[in-house]
Amino acid sequence: MEKATQSCTSTNSSGSYANCQSGYLAVSCSCGNACVSWDIQSEKTCHFQCANQDWTSACCCMIGNK
Amino acid sequence: MEKATQSCTSTNSSGSYANCQSGYLAVSCSCGNACVSWDIQSEKTCHFQCANQDWTSACCCMIGNK
Amino acid sequence: MEKATQSCTSTNSSGSYANCQSGYLAVSCSCGNACVSWDIQSEKTCHFQCANQDWTSACCCMIGNK
Repeated sequence: MEKATQSCTSTNSSGSYANCQSGYLAVSCSCGNACVSWDIQSEKTCHFQCANQDWTSACCCMIGNK
Repeated sequence: MEKATQSCTSTNSSGSYANCQSGYLAVSCSCGNACVSWDIQSEKTCHFQCANQDWTSACCCMIGNK
Repeated sequence: MEKATQSCTSTNSSGSYANCQSGYLAVSCSCGNACVSWDIQSEKTCHFQCANQDWTSACCCMIGNK
Protein backbone atom coordinates (compact mmCIF):
# COMPACT_ATOMS: atom_id res chain seq x y z
CA MET A 1 0.00 0.00 0.00
CA GLU A 2 1.59 3.32 -1.07
CA LYS A 3 1.72 6.09 1.53
CA ALA A 4 1.84 9.81 0.80
CA THR A 5 4.70 11.79 2.31
CA GLN A 6 5.66 15.48 2.25
CA SER A 7 9.10 17.04 2.08
CA CYS A 8 9.99 20.72 2.03
CA THR A 9 13.17 22.57 1.26
CA SER A 10 14.25 26.18 0.61
CA THR A 11 15.90 27.77 -2.41
CA ASN A 12 17.63 31.15 -2.25
CA SER A 13 18.53 33.58 -5.00
CA SER A 14 19.81 37.14 -5.20
CA GLY A 15 17.25 39.69 -6.39
CA SER A 16 13.44 39.54 -6.33
CA TYR A 17 12.79 36.00 -7.59
CA ALA A 18 13.42 32.46 -6.29
CA ASN A 19 12.46 29.27 -8.15
CA CYS A 20 11.59 25.88 -6.68
CA GLN A 21 13.21 22.78 -8.14
CA SER A 22 11.29 20.55 -10.49
CA GLY A 23 8.51 18.65 -8.75
CA TYR A 24 8.27 21.13 -5.87
CA LEU A 25 5.66 23.87 -5.33
CA ALA A 26 6.37 27.24 -3.71
CA VAL A 27 4.25 27.64 -0.56
CA SER A 28 5.77 30.75 1.01
CA CYS A 29 8.40 33.41 0.37
CA SER A 30 10.93 35.31 2.49
CA CYS A 31 13.26 38.17 1.58
CA GLY A 32 16.16 40.23 2.85
CA ASN A 33 14.91 43.76 2.42
CA ALA A 34 11.77 44.61 4.42
CA CYS A 35 9.19 43.72 1.77
CA VAL A 36 5.99 41.86 2.61
CA SER A 37 4.30 42.07 -0.76
CA TRP A 38 5.00 38.92 -2.66
CA ASP A 39 3.21 36.57 -5.04
CA ILE A 40 3.78 33.05 -6.31
CA GLN A 41 3.94 32.66 -10.08
CA SER A 42 3.19 29.38 -11.92
CA GLU A 43 3.09 27.59 -8.55
CA LYS A 44 6.93 27.53 -8.51
CA THR A 45 8.36 31.07 -8.34
CA CYS A 46 8.44 33.48 -5.40
CA HIS A 47 8.35 37.12 -6.53
CA PHE A 48 8.79 40.15 -4.26
CA GLN A 49 7.07 43.28 -5.52
CA CYS A 50 9.28 45.90 -3.84
CA ALA A 51 12.37 47.32 -5.56
CA ASN A 52 15.97 46.57 -4.58
CA GLN A 53 15.61 43.10 -3.09
CA ASP A 54 19.01 41.73 -2.07
CA TRP A 55 17.82 38.12 -1.73
CA THR A 56 14.63 36.09 -2.05
CA SER A 57 13.96 32.65 -0.57
CA ALA A 58 11.20 30.19 -1.50
CA CYS A 59 9.87 27.46 0.78
CA CYS A 60 9.23 24.58 -1.65
CA CYS A 61 7.23 21.44 -0.82
CA MET A 62 6.64 18.16 -2.64
CA ILE A 63 4.28 15.23 -2.12
CA GLY A 64 5.83 11.79 -2.57
CA ASN A 65 4.24 8.32 -2.74
CA LYS A 66 6.29 5.61 -0.98
CA MET B 1 -2.99 2.45 -7.33
CA GLU B 2 -4.01 6.02 -6.31
CA LYS B 3 -1.25 8.60 -6.07
CA ALA B 4 -1.30 11.71 -3.89
CA THR B 5 -0.74 15.05 -5.62
CA GLN B 6 -0.52 18.64 -4.39
CA SER B 7 -1.79 21.81 -6.05
CA CYS B 8 -1.54 25.37 -4.75
CA THR B 9 -3.18 28.59 -5.79
CA SER B 10 -3.57 32.14 -4.43
CA THR B 11 -6.66 34.13 -3.51
CA ASN B 12 -6.61 37.91 -3.11
CA SER B 13 -9.01 40.22 -1.28
CA SER B 14 -9.06 43.86 -0.30
CA GLY B 15 -8.65 44.50 3.43
CA SER B 16 -7.08 42.30 6.13
CA TYR B 17 -8.59 38.89 5.31
CA ALA B 18 -8.30 36.38 2.43
CA ASN B 19 -10.15 33.04 2.29
CA CYS B 20 -9.08 29.86 0.54
CA GLN B 21 -11.59 28.02 -1.65
CA SER B 22 -13.34 24.93 -0.39
CA GLY B 23 -10.98 21.96 -0.08
CA TYR B 24 -7.86 24.15 0.15
CA LEU B 25 -5.84 25.04 3.27
CA ALA B 26 -4.07 28.39 3.80
CA VAL B 27 -0.33 27.82 4.20
CA SER B 28 1.03 31.37 4.02
CA CYS B 29 -0.13 34.97 3.75
CA SER B 30 1.07 38.10 1.96
CA CYS B 31 -0.16 41.69 2.13
CA GLY B 32 0.17 45.07 0.52
CA ASN B 33 0.93 47.31 3.47
CA ALA B 34 4.13 46.46 5.35
CA CYS B 35 2.62 44.11 7.92
CA VAL B 36 4.36 40.89 8.96
CA SER B 37 2.03 39.87 11.78
CA TRP B 38 -0.52 37.47 10.43
CA ASP B 39 -2.34 34.34 11.56
CA ILE B 40 -4.33 31.62 9.85
CA GLN B 41 -7.86 31.08 11.16
CA SER B 42 -9.80 27.79 10.79
CA GLU B 43 -7.04 26.51 8.50
CA LYS B 44 -8.55 28.55 5.62
CA THR B 45 -8.34 32.30 6.33
CA CYS B 46 -5.31 34.58 6.26
CA HIS B 47 -5.65 37.49 8.68
CA PHE B 48 -3.24 40.44 8.97
CA GLN B 49 -3.14 42.02 12.43
CA CYS B 50 -2.06 45.54 11.44
CA ALA B 51 -4.59 48.28 10.66
CA ASN B 52 -5.30 49.69 7.18
CA GLN B 53 -4.42 46.72 4.99
CA ASP B 54 -5.12 47.50 1.33
CA TRP B 55 -4.98 43.86 0.18
CA THR B 56 -4.35 40.40 1.61
CA SER B 57 -3.36 37.29 -0.33
CA ALA B 58 -3.52 33.65 0.83
CA CYS B 59 -1.43 30.83 -0.62
CA CYS B 60 -3.85 27.88 -0.58
CA CYS B 61 -2.85 24.24 -1.10
CA MET B 62 -4.84 21.05 -1.60
CA ILE B 63 -3.95 17.34 -1.60
CA GLY B 64 -5.58 15.27 -4.34
CA ASN B 65 -5.72 11.49 -4.88
CA LYS B 66 -5.43 10.48 -8.56
CA MET C 1 -7.86 2.28 -0.65
CA GLU C 2 -5.94 4.78 1.50
CA LYS C 3 -6.41 8.48 0.72
CA ALA C 4 -3.90 11.21 1.46
CA THR C 5 -5.08 14.17 3.52
CA GLN C 6 -3.42 17.40 4.69
CA SER C 7 -3.85 19.21 7.99
CA CYS C 8 -2.15 22.42 9.09
CA THR C 9 -1.86 24.14 12.44
CA SER C 10 0.15 26.99 13.97
CA THR C 11 2.58 27.05 16.88
CA ASN C 12 3.59 30.27 18.64
CA SER C 13 6.60 31.04 20.82
CA SER C 14 8.16 34.13 22.33
CA GLY C 15 11.46 35.17 20.75
CA SER C 16 12.85 34.40 17.29
CA TYR C 17 12.12 30.67 16.97
CA ALA C 18 8.97 28.50 16.70
CA ASN C 19 9.00 24.69 16.39
CA CYS C 20 6.42 22.49 14.69
CA GLN C 21 5.15 19.42 16.54
CA SER C 22 6.44 15.98 15.67
CA GLY C 23 5.25 14.82 12.26
CA TYR C 24 4.58 18.35 10.99
CA LEU C 25 6.72 20.44 8.63
CA ALA C 26 7.08 24.25 8.84
CA VAL C 27 5.83 25.85 5.59
CA SER C 28 5.75 29.53 6.53
CA CYS C 29 6.62 31.88 9.38
CA SER C 30 5.07 35.02 10.89
CA CYS C 31 6.36 37.35 13.60
CA GLY C 32 5.38 40.24 15.82
CA ASN C 33 8.14 42.75 15.15
CA ALA C 34 8.37 43.95 11.55
CA CYS C 35 10.87 41.36 10.30
CA VAL C 36 10.52 39.68 6.91
CA SER C 37 13.82 37.79 6.88
CA TRP C 38 13.21 34.27 8.08
CA ASP C 39 14.40 30.78 7.30
CA ILE C 40 13.19 27.29 8.10
CA GLN C 41 15.70 25.02 9.84
CA SER C 42 15.56 21.19 9.70
CA GLU C 43 12.15 21.44 8.00
CA LYS C 44 10.53 22.07 11.43
CA THR C 45 11.76 25.37 12.91
CA CYS C 46 10.89 28.92 11.92
CA HIS C 47 13.72 31.36 12.61
CA PHE C 48 13.53 35.16 12.27
CA GLN C 49 16.86 36.82 11.52
CA CYS C 50 16.17 40.27 12.97
CA ALA C 51 16.98 41.10 16.61
CA ASN C 52 14.39 41.64 19.36
CA GLN C 53 11.55 39.43 18.11
CA ASP C 54 8.68 39.43 20.63
CA TRP C 55 6.94 36.39 19.13
CA THR C 56 7.36 33.95 16.25
CA SER C 57 4.65 31.74 14.73
CA ALA C 58 5.12 28.70 12.46
CA CYS C 59 2.48 27.38 10.07
CA CYS C 60 2.95 23.59 10.31
CA CYS C 61 1.45 21.05 7.90
CA MET C 62 1.24 17.25 7.92
CA ILE C 63 0.22 14.65 5.34
CA GLY C 64 -1.95 11.81 6.66
CA ASN C 65 -3.06 8.55 5.02
CA LYS C 66 -6.67 7.57 5.86
